[in-house]
Amino acid sequence: VTQPSFPSPTIGVFDSGFGGLTVLRALIARAPQARYAFIGDTARLPYGSKSRRTIARYAAQSARFLVEEQGADYLVIACNTASALALDDIKEAVPSSVSVIGVIEPGADAAHAASTTRDVLVIATDATVRSHAYAAACQARGLRALEKACPLLVPLVEEGWVTSTLNDPLPAQAAPAPRPLAVTAEVVRIYLDELLADAASQGLNPDTLVLGCTHYPLLKPVIERALPPGTKIIDSAESTAHQQVMLLCRDLAPPPQATETDPVLRFFATDSVEKFERLGSRFLGRPVGNVQLVDLGG
Amino acid sequence: VTQPSFPSPTIGVFDSGFGGLTVLRALIARAPQARYAFIGDTARLPYGSKSRRTIARYAAQSARFLVEEQGADYLVIACNTASALALDDIKEAVPSSVSVIGVIEPGADAAHAASTTRDVLVIATDATVRSHAYAAACQARGLRALEKACPLLVPLVEEGWVTSTLNDPLPAQAAPAPRPLAVTAEVVRIYLDELLADAASQGLNPDTLVLGCTHYPLLKPVIERALPPGTKIIDSAESTAHQQVMLLCRDLAPPPQATETDPVLRFFATDSVEKFERLGSRFLGRPVGNVQLVDLGG
Repeated sequence: VTQPSFPSPTIGVFDSGFGGLTVLRALIARAPQARYAFIGDTARLPYGSKSRRTIARYAAQSARFLVEEQGADYLVIACNTASALALDDIKEAVPSSVSVIGVIEPGADAAHAASTTRDVLVIATDATVRSHAYAAACQARGLRALEKACPLLVPLVEEGWVTSTLNDPLPAQAAPAPRPLAVTAEVVRIYLDELLADAASQGLNPDTLVLGCTHYPLLKPVIERALPPGTKIIDSAESTAHQQVMLLCRDLAPPPQATETDPVLRFFATDSVEKFERLGSRFLGRPVGNVQLVDLGG
Repeated sequence: VTQPSFPSPTIGVFDSGFGGLTVLRALIARAPQARYAFIGDTARLPYGSKSRRTIARYAAQSARFLVEEQGADYLVIACNTASALALDDIKEAVPSSVSVIGVIEPGADAAHAASTTRDVLVIATDATVRSHAYAAACQARGLRALEKACPLLVPLVEEGWVTSTLNDPLPAQAAPAPRPLAVTAEVVRIYLDELLADAASQGLNPDTLVLGCTHYPLLKPVIERALPPGTKIIDSAESTAHQQVMLLCRDLAPPPQATETDPVLRFFATDSVEKFERLGSRFLGRPVGNVQLVDLGG
């Protein structure tokens, strides 16, 4: 790994699992000169089905690890559930000099910029939806938001019943899909048909869908096909990376520039590093190696 | 709750979540006069995707809670993953006077009793399959076993995309199934078609399928339809309860008899008791109330 030749900030990225690697991927594309430390709390995932108190305790442990042991100057909470339920707990767990950014506000900003009808849909995990964090953030921007929990989508992505990488095209619509991909497409249609019917019954006219979970970008092709044509899809990973880089540009001189060096990446997990390395590359879009096991005491 | 009028043992039942309530249900049916303490380590579920070391640490904490704080004389590890990977760790964590029984050996005993071809299939979580605990237990009984991980089945059961209770009939085969149930049936067929093809390619002639996860009994009707007619299905919850009651009969005088009293049940969870009460009744087949939150320090 080539070290950058100028002082560069360390950005700590936290997720309950691998999904946040989609945020890291978007960050690297925009700020390749930064140093990154990513931790996935894989021993205790998924957060999406757990209570606020438990999520806050777990997330604060990971945040302290990134700041105290990895020297993070910035924290990106690349987990919708932790952003929705525990952002304040995380900010309290680290010194106030550390900038903490979650994925909810950037996602709501992007929805605000995209929607012309001012009605948006949000799909997310059970805990994120129960928190109504997206609905509140959208409402603060003058949007009406209808949220739906889609608990089967994360397991389907982790089982690999998706196109093989983030950018693979779907099979032609006429061609029969492989049976696992057809299952995933039907699950997505069941959830979105219910959501669209609920929206219609409430008199909403949504033109935008927010992907409120970092696993969902891997399902973007099947999600697009299940929506009315022209519906805009907001990927909160992309929106968060964009907002984080804006923050870096404000704080740093010289401003970040694209370089030819490899990014400086450190990976940590609280459980099986083999699984992390195997699944992680699917989300990061590049090999994930040298994952170190850490014990957060849980 | 009526107290039984004679000395009765306390049976501690442990699972990572709610699934083990199918084992408790089978136990209550056979030994209603015992006292039961059930703990679901819901803050840290699922175990099926985690490493052996992490599973062993978590399971030992729950086992000690049941023995030291709830006075359990017997421990039933109603979690296939913990039974497969951590039974020895659990036995070491509690006094040797406590009888510890897992679900693997009873399941293999039942498969041995059921199979005439001596070839059996096992479906389970990823971690249970990677341990090959069922294959080893079957081999020790002269059976050949082929195992397959089915990671989507637990999320489908927890999402409720099954018939509404354990014993609901499926819709008539000709009738169109509700879309969620049709998805579950197709997922089951995809997994079992792969397993049956693998078995055929290895020259096996299986006549028995072991349900190696306590969530799977809720899928029994759709599993039956995806198998060749006449295939026997072993429910390890039933087998374990049977074996535990045999153990009780051996240890106790007078032998257990059916009584008219309500069973004495205490429930504990490490996360959201609301969710436990809501989902738990689906597995237990009776209302689950008064669940107490416990902190195992994780």
